[in-house]
Amino acid sequence: MKVAGLDTPTLVVDLDRLGANIADMASRATSAGVRLRPHTKTHKIPEIARLQVAAGAAGITCAKVGEAEVMVDAGLDDVLIAYPVLGAQKLARLRALRERARILVSLDSVEVAEGLGALGVATKSPVEVYVEVDTGQHRLGTAPGAPTVDLARQVAGIRGLTLVGLLTHAGHANSVTNVAHRRVLIEREIDDLLTTQALCAQIGLELVEISVGSTPAARLEATSPGVTEMRPGTYVFNDTATIDHGVATGDTCALHVLATVVGRPTPERFVIDAGSKCFSSDGAGTSGWLRVAGRDDLTMEFTTEEHGVGTIDLARGGRLSIGDRLLVIPRHVCAVVNLFDTVTTTRGGEVTGELRVAGRGRVR
Amino acid sequence: MKVAGLDTPTLVVDLDRLGANIADMASRATSAGVRLRPHTKTHKIPEIARLQVAAGAAGITCAKVGEAEVMVDAGLDDVLIAYPVLGAQKLARLRALRERARILVSLDSVEVAEGLGALGVATKSPVEVYVEVDTGQHRLGTAPGAPTVDLARQVAGIRGLTLVGLLTHAGHANSVTNVAHRRVLIEREIDDLLTTQALCAQIGLELVEISVGSTPAARLEATSPGVTEMRPGTYVFNDTATIDHGVATGDTCALHVLATVVGRPTPERFVIDAGSKCFSSDGAGTSGWLRVAGRDDLTMEFTTEEHGVGTIDLARGGRLSIGDRLLVIPRHVCAVVNLFDTVTTTRGGEVTGELRVAGRGRVR
Repeated sequence: MKVAGLDTPTLVVDLDRLGANIADMASRATSAGVRLRPHTKTHKIPEIARLQVAAGAAGITCAKVGEAEVMVDAGLDDVLIAYPVLGAQKLARLRALRERARILVSLDSVEVAEGLGALGVATKSPVEVYVEVDTGQHRLGTAPGAPTVDLARQVAGIRGLTLVGLLTHAGHANSVTNVAHRRVLIEREIDDLLTTQALCAQIGLELVEISVGSTPAARLEATSPGVTEMRPGTYVFNDTATIDHGVATGDTCALHVLATVVGRPTPERFVIDAGSKCFSSDGAGTSGWLRVAGRDDLTMEFTTEEHGVGTIDLARGGRLSIGDRLLVIPRHVCAVVNLFDTVTTTRGGEVTGELRVAGRGRVR
Repeated sequence: MKVAGLDTPTLVVDLDRLGANIADMASRATSAGVRLRPHTKTHKIPEIARLQVAAGAAGITCAKVGEAEVMVDAGLDDVLIAYPVLGAQKLARLRALRERARILVSLDSVEVAEGLGALGVATKSPVEVYVEVDTGQHRLGTAPGAPTVDLARQVAGIRGLTLVGLLTHAGHANSVTNVAHRRVLIEREIDDLLTTQALCAQIGLELVEISVGSTPAARLEATSPGVTEMRPGTYVFNDTATIDHGVATGDTCALHVLATVVGRPTPERFVIDAGSKCFSSDGAGTSGWLRVAGRDDLTMEFTTEEHGVGTIDLARGGRLSIGDRLLVIPRHVCAVVNLFDTVTTTRGGEVTGELRVAGRGRVR
């Protein structure tokens, strides 16, 4: 079947482009001598995680215990849960997972460290942990320098844990599209991590790993001396955010929302059958947040749950009819995939099959 | 089990409050002599749709064919699909649905009307349709007055259709929280509909139904002479948007996101285990978009996919520890429910069971 024969809205993944994106990032990591541990929250699909490992990824990253369960069920056996695992229910699930795979965990508090340490003691197998550092996103993470050194010292003193290194996510740099500005923020990120690592060494804590994340920062982070591991996610599919960051183009986008024009209520306005239930509202309203592939004459204006509303540049001769199909590049592809049960795979415009988004909605 | 014993993040629905909200809207409709056809996209749960019908709703509204299928499967037998149904695949599914239930459809184009008319002719059973009017949201819908009269005339001339009336959704009024301003917009909405209805009558088109929607507008719309049907959705659960519209309070919110504090990286900052994958990003960043029930000292600042980041007002003596549970009122509850496979039901703080969000993700 041709893509044009699919009912809409549907997520369409170009397998050739996906493969090229996976190979490209793997090659960057190898060249830089950095371990690639891609964040699978972007796709939540075990089959794609296996492609990443086959291309050279040393393991994967997940956001929650539930995502890790899906990946371990599918045979992935080296997983970083980049999230503080807390509470009896999740620790019991983590215990079960550790019988089947290597699982590392990040944390930023003594409370979480103590729960994990008790698990390590009970199972006579220390839990490998990273301490998360706040390099500017101001989400989780202790501040670089003394606060992190203090936490690392306490964590290292808790029985049942192995402190492997420092971890951060420079999400604040990803909201900056100016390349020079982003470069400054990432240089500061790396400097903060290495300085903290050196301070830890002064008190006898040898932290082996420096783990960083994100697709927009990957090129700069990978080549920074001292970095041992990177965790980009979005690169498998790309989106208008990574295009705006200058690390992707329309041609390297492997995922589109296939939609149908269901309304042409005025000469300038069109409505497609994909809204915020397909695109999410991440980044909604920013200029060019959604882009129609190959149609510079069409501008998406706003979405509601089931409607995507756009305008046609009539002066440029734009034409669009009810029933026409459009391929739309989303703003934040991770959030988009989480809204669908399946993605449809294609090669050369032909539908090849369907993949289940097995990790969708695994927020616990 | 107590609510406090649930793992997080989890959607928690208070059945007593849900029942009271359903009864209250049913009573408003009855008093006003208006048919209630609630939009079930808010909950996507057949069991709740049945409660609405048991309380007096004359039928239900769905957003897509897929949502209608879920409801008809569960025995709901009078469904308005408030969306233009277009294309061979969806028309085939609509045909199957019509063998099991009464299905009405809204549209704003001759193209969609012709597809539905062909179905009506083929099945020897006219399809009941509404013409959608754009009363200011500028999404679907023809302009009031001549453009709608012209479309209504064409639709009435297509074999296989029964034109039952005019339909609108005054979504533009819902982005206005000032009550006086909203009243003006809704008065204009109703006036536009009735004027158009009168113009249609002048050319011999008797349009029986005037169907309006939305929870914020329901009180004003229901009591407007000429309105025959209303389609509010959010009222079953409420959210910070309906609170800000002055039609709900914290006490009438029937749904909360139960979350756990997983990080306290600074004295002022806390992080919960629910982010945009639980709250969606609808309305994100507007003041008070998420509110922690009973905790005026806590302010939610931003979310990423798995993190909700907030600040504590220390000057007011705020205290919060890792592991604490919080009940958070979301901004746009329809989008929240669409992110979960199940909701957990409670009465008086005790867990009573789970309901499947059977219509989740049915975007086709």
